Amino acid sequence: MSTGPASGASSDGAARFGVVVVSDRASRGEYEDRGGPAVQSYLEQAFSSALDFEYRLVSDDRAAVADTLRELADERGCCLVVTTGGTGPSKRDVTVDATLDVVDKVLPGFGEAMRAVSRTKVPTAVLSRQAAGIRGGALIINLPGSPKAIDECLDAVILAVPDCVDLLGGPRLELSDREAYRPHD
Amino acid sequence: MSTGPASGASSDGAARFGVVVVSDRASRGEYEDRGGPAVQSYLEQAFSSALDFEYRLVSDDRAAVADTLRELADERGCCLVVTTGGTGPSKRDVTVDATLDVVDKVLPGFGEAMRAVSRTKVPTAVLSRQAAGIRGGALIINLPGSPKAIDECLDAVILAVPDCVDLLGGPRLELSDREAYRPHD
Amino acid sequence: MSTGPASGASSDGAARFGVVVVSDRASRGEYEDRGGPAVQSYLEQAFSSALDFEYRLVSDDRAAVADTLRELADERGCCLVVTTGGTGPSKRDVTVDATLDVVDKVLPGFGEAMRAVSRTKVPTAVLSRQAAGIRGGALIINLPGSPKAIDECLDAVILAVPDCVDLLGGPRLELSDREAYRPHD
Repeated sequence: MSTGPASGASSDGAARFGVVVVSDRASRGEYEDRGGPAVQSYLEQAFSSALDFEYRLVSDDRAAVADTLRELADERGCCLVVTTGGTGPSKRDVTVDATLDVVDKVLPGFGEAMRAVSRTKVPTAVLSRQAAGIRGGALIINLPGSPKAIDECLDAVILAVPDCVDLLGGPRLELSDREAYRPHD
Repeated sequence: MSTGPASGASSDGAARFGVVVVSDRASRGEYEDRGGPAVQSYLEQAFSSALDFEYRLVSDDRAAVADTLRELADERGCCLVVTTGGTGPSKRDVTVDATLDVVDKVLPGFGEAMRAVSRTKVPTAVLSRQAAGIRGGALIINLPGSPKAIDECLDAVILAVPDCVDLLGGPRLELSDREAYRPHD
Repeated sequence: MSTGPASGASSDGAARFGVVVVSDRASRGEYEDRGGPAVQSYLEQAFSSALDFEYRLVSDDRAAVADTLRELADERGCCLVVTTGGTGPSKRDVTVDATLDVVDKVLPGFGEAMRAVSRTKVPTAVLSRQAAGIRGGALIINLPGSPKAIDECLDAVILAVPDCVDLLGGPRLELSDREAYRPHD
């Protein structure tokens, strides 16, 4: 059994996931964020594996978001890091830029698949810049801030997460119900 | 009431839009461009808001197209700039490169949504490199040159334009008939 | 009749295509590659034009793949170069990076169209980073390694290949049966 954060698993063998809420107002306590809890709740239900969450609340600051992603991937050893918020076209929307700053490889299929599903629901989905990529042993996925959009986006890509984490040398992740997630288009 | 071109509105309160026709032959007068009129006609019908158009005809020169985009966004204060032509794979197709040269942020969802619709109509749609992005207070969208493709592409993204311009601090845009544009996939 | 490799045609007038198998194990002879034969067989059946193939087996080394793509495009005068393998998220998957290193222009519609089709079949399709682009007179397309996925991906884009090669000044390519390839979405 591992005693450190390496390999995306905590010392008790649970897979370690990072959840990063990016929001000026939420990080100042002016607003109760609903995106972070929605992400964590989704992941807890989707996976039957033991999970250990690292939760971070960050302002819409590109360097601060990038630092948080590096910390979760490199020091905390998360095998999956999901961000929520900051994916739009406004000046303060910097989550995607920070993600592209830190990833070794971009995985364009995630953004495409999530936007393809979202735009059948809401026309403003084309404004989302959400991306995904690999940093070391961590898969990083950007999600929007709305709980409804979070669920739709994760539904579109969750089946690929265990295979990706496995390819990166991370822990074995088990989905509770693979049949619940059919390919989307 | 504003007296200058700031905030994407002209002095009489009309929203200012830029239309940029990119074509060597059209800019030399050897060919009557049909893309520019198709773009302007579409936008006039789609919006019930008062509109003020800035129309430009440019050769397939990367620096010239980039200069025109900067002028329309920065000096003329357009809140929306739509290009037509120069989105293909040929050596002289430089509109997309010029757009990526000047935008602060790329909005990948626009190209994805437009190509997803176009490829159900015509297989060569996969050759289009059309992109979109933000420069200051302007949303810049690349369109192909064919009037039919212009209509299909704008149908796929027009509903997101008022929200995007609003997020950038621009004028309030009203669509004539929101129901006419359903989400595509 | 040409006497050299220029213009994507060999000296007997056949169109010259490159097939690049990217695989550490296959290049060491430890594994019999099935992707390369699947690509060649597909192209031979899809086109009625006379074809001349340049076949290369390369290890998962970014510089080696980039050198091979340059050789096929610049020295061998291929009008189409198709790679198979190395498009995933693992550390040794470098085919896409090598392709982006050598292309003059990226054609994002190819990756989008191929992933859009693949993700209706297999959820891990979102992990594919496959790209396409232009180098001089050559269209370069990345494909995954699985013969089934190769066929699905080529079905989604093959109709655009003759137009693209034509726009690049290459030889006239004739498809055996245009009706066999309908637009996908």
